[in-house]
Amino acid sequence: MVTVNPPVNPMTLLASFDAEIDQLIDCGRYFYQRGWSVGTSSNYSSLITRDPVRLLITSSGKDKGNLCHKDFVVVDESGKTLLPDQPKSSAETMLHVQAIKLPHVRSVLHTHSVWGTVLSDHFFDQGAIRISGYEMQKGLAGITTHESTITLPIFENTQDIPSLAKQVDEYMQSATGPVHGYLIRRHGLYTWGKDIAEARRHIEVIEFLLEVIGRRTILT
Amino acid sequence: MVTVNPPVNPMTLLASFDAEIDQLIDCGRYFYQRGWSVGTSSNYSSLITRDPVRLLITSSGKDKGNLCHKDFVVVDESGKTLLPDQPKSSAETMLHVQAIKLPHVRSVLHTHSVWGTVLSDHFFDQGAIRISGYEMQKGLAGITTHESTITLPIFENTQDIPSLAKQVDEYMQSATGPVHGYLIRRHGLYTWGKDIAEARRHIEVIEFLLEVIGRRTILT
Amino acid sequence: MVTVNPPVNPMTLLASFDAEIDQLIDCGRYFYQRGWSVGTSSNYSSLITRDPVRLLITSSGKDKGNLCHKDFVVVDESGKTLLPDQPKSSAETMLHVQAIKLPHVRSVLHTHSVWGTVLSDHFFDQGAIRISGYEMQKGLAGITTHESTITLPIFENTQDIPSLAKQVDEYMQSATGPVHGYLIRRHGLYTWGKDIAEARRHIEVIEFLLEVIGRRTILT
Amino acid sequence: MVTVNPPVNPMTLLASFDAEIDQLIDCGRYFYQRGWSVGTSSNYSSLITRDPVRLLITSSGKDKGNLCHKDFVVVDESGKTLLPDQPKSSAETMLHVQAIKLPHVRSVLHTHSVWGTVLSDHFFDQGAIRISGYEMQKGLAGITTHESTITLPIFENTQDIPSLAKQVDEYMQSATGPVHGYLIRRHGLYTWGKDIAEARRHIEVIEFLLEVIGRRTILT
Repeated sequence: MVTVNPPVNPMTLLASFDAEIDQLIDCGRYFYQRGWSVGTSSNYSSLITRDPVRLLITSSGKDKGNLCHKDFVVVDESGKTLLPDQPKSSAETMLHVQAIKLPHVRSVLHTHSVWGTVLSDHFFDQGAIRISGYEMQKGLAGITTHESTITLPIFENTQDIPSLAKQVDEYMQSATGPVHGYLIRRHGLYTWGKDIAEARRHIEVIEFLLEVIGRRTILT
Repeated sequence: MVTVNPPVNPMTLLASFDAEIDQLIDCGRYFYQRGWSVGTSSNYSSLITRDPVRLLITSSGKDKGNLCHKDFVVVDESGKTLLPDQPKSSAETMLHVQAIKLPHVRSVLHTHSVWGTVLSDHFFDQGAIRISGYEMQKGLAGITTHESTITLPIFENTQDIPSLAKQVDEYMQSATGPVHGYLIRRHGLYTWGKDIAEARRHIEVIEFLLEVIGRRTILT
Repeated sequence: MVTVNPPVNPMTLLASFDAEIDQLIDCGRYFYQRGWSVGTSSNYSSLITRDPVRLLITSSGKDKGNLCHKDFVVVDESGKTLLPDQPKSSAETMLHVQAIKLPHVRSVLHTHSVWGTVLSDHFFDQGAIRISGYEMQKGLAGITTHESTITLPIFENTQDIPSLAKQVDEYMQSATGPVHGYLIRRHGLYTWGKDIAEARRHIEVIEFLLEVIGRRTILT
Repeated sequence: MVTVNPPVNPMTLLASFDAEIDQLIDCGRYFYQRGWSVGTSSNYSSLITRDPVRLLITSSGKDKGNLCHKDFVVVDESGKTLLPDQPKSSAETMLHVQAIKLPHVRSVLHTHSVWGTVLSDHFFDQGAIRISGYEMQKGLAGITTHESTITLPIFENTQDIPSLAKQVDEYMQSATGPVHGYLIRRHGLYTWGKDIAEARRHIEVIEFLLEVIGRRTILT
């Protein structure tokens, strides 16, 4: 499935997307400061073209609090970087490629917060965290009232990313309502949006709601 | 009640209030950094003229950590923006209009903190959070001793803002003492002041007291 | 005891202490960011001359996250500001004057943290918080080993500052070892040092130890 | 073992290592902001030459949030500063010298976080904190899967640093797997890496995991 001769040179494409890179750099700076992307964890991406798939994504192992333009690569739909002199893309690239299959999705963000890590374990046996009745839910695309239920499925962690991507695919295809994100057990959160700003808003909203649920659970 | 022909052009007015806008931008930057205004939540306002009502307020859905001058609108007493090319004002504008009916109030601030969300739910059955005996209470206008009781009523959340505004109105008219703010269940805090600085001080004081009550409840 | 004709003009003195004011401004910026001096709470001081007492101190009600040079006043040993056009000094100035009676003390810092507020109440019946066995204790002047005990007495809060100052005086005179600071119930922390840097280090050390004790108490 | 006539002037060496000093300054700024290096606690080092040992290290008692170039010294393998006009190196220098005996280690970082302090006490009787099943573990050098166990031994705190260094030495020599760091009871964390970036990543990863374990313990 690798596009051997991409119709557009990815480096030329990259130069055209300085604004998107700057937005992702700013996401990293904030997420790092909040403790959601420390230890070079997390990956951020933005779709350049959908057909063929050209995805701008953080390369593997970079400090997310201090990203620079050379810390990004362009990958195709198989997750491979498109030029031999580019740094390696993250192992989890295929989870980004999976999420941008959703027709309205153009940006995918992944964070590793303390609350996401703890709660994805605490609620693992229930298969999901269900969140109802909070005003902040309206920060998720398409949600217009707190009288709604957000379901964040929790998948068991694995180093077999293609297998995990397949599980997420199956979950999404069988889901009866919109899926705003998911958790990987003891690992972190994936969410997305129609652009980087929406995906970032979703990270902020879900991380807020996870902290609310964590503190509420301790309080009661 | 819409003033069809406002006596002063709102855009001309807006240009005269750069200092107020800068103050509200700075509120947003701090509240966002503290996690009280993430996910584009919260609204901030400052009164321009009281008769007729011209209220400067954040427009709907803006990133509060990075507000700019064009993210503000001017609304009248019905909550409508005064020029057709202005962005939409927030749905909750009417709660700001409600609060500035208090004769000494010229700024209204609304935040969505984790503790405000959790405690407005935890104490909902008691109808209010009552706070006594803390020195920090003296940061609220008119309070000169810790030997006082602050009552923060909690209203059930609703998407019917006019109905909520009416409940707040009724509460204020029947209150026997000064009302410094209120909580909406699983939603957040409204407070106000004679100017932006005082309203911001009230946010800081009440958010501090909520965190104190949250941690005290866990500790004991 | 008021020095009617101070031998040096306090405004001339003030201009000579720009470096000290800048240090106190920087303390405020950090303490505010940590949530220890929000809502215009807290006061910071630095001794200019001991005989007669000329104390540089934050004036009442200023935003501690954004102090500027005009937010400081010079007071004498009775806590009165020395020039009629200066803003009012804080009501708690006399607690600063009390602390600088200790011969080695030239700076006094007062903070209102969440943990200080909660723990000064939680341990009130024991009269003090006693802290033993932590390496961080070595950050307090004169402490060379974690095998020491720090005692932070807790005084009941009152708006009668002269009475409180007298209680602190009596405590210090009867104390058998060095006193590094004290708590006022549901109010906050006073500590000091031979200069601003040492007083700031003491705030950081004691606030750290209070958070440790708070979290340890929850954990066990 | 002191090299009386070092083959290279340490001040000349120091000037060549501005980039390393800047990296350590940046570590301090971040760790201080996170509350991991307050009250002038913590020490950071980077190896200049291994034979003879020339180690760049923070001098004793400096504010870690605001380090400057003159706050660093060069020490030899006995922990002594190499020029008489240099400030004193930290008492814990010998723990840095101990760690850089590991052939792949060129930077050692030591922090005092609240969670590290609390958990090193809470788990002291078990001799170590064992961490399994978290994705974040992959941020430690050589760890490729969450299905691994990280062991952080806990040593009793002491002011006898040579004795503590000897205990750490013995632990490392008897360890059957890689050692990524250790805790000193009620004191803090030591970790290291092949360069400053790796050592910093290890601090971020381990401090994250300690917070996860602390909050998980409270939650369950």
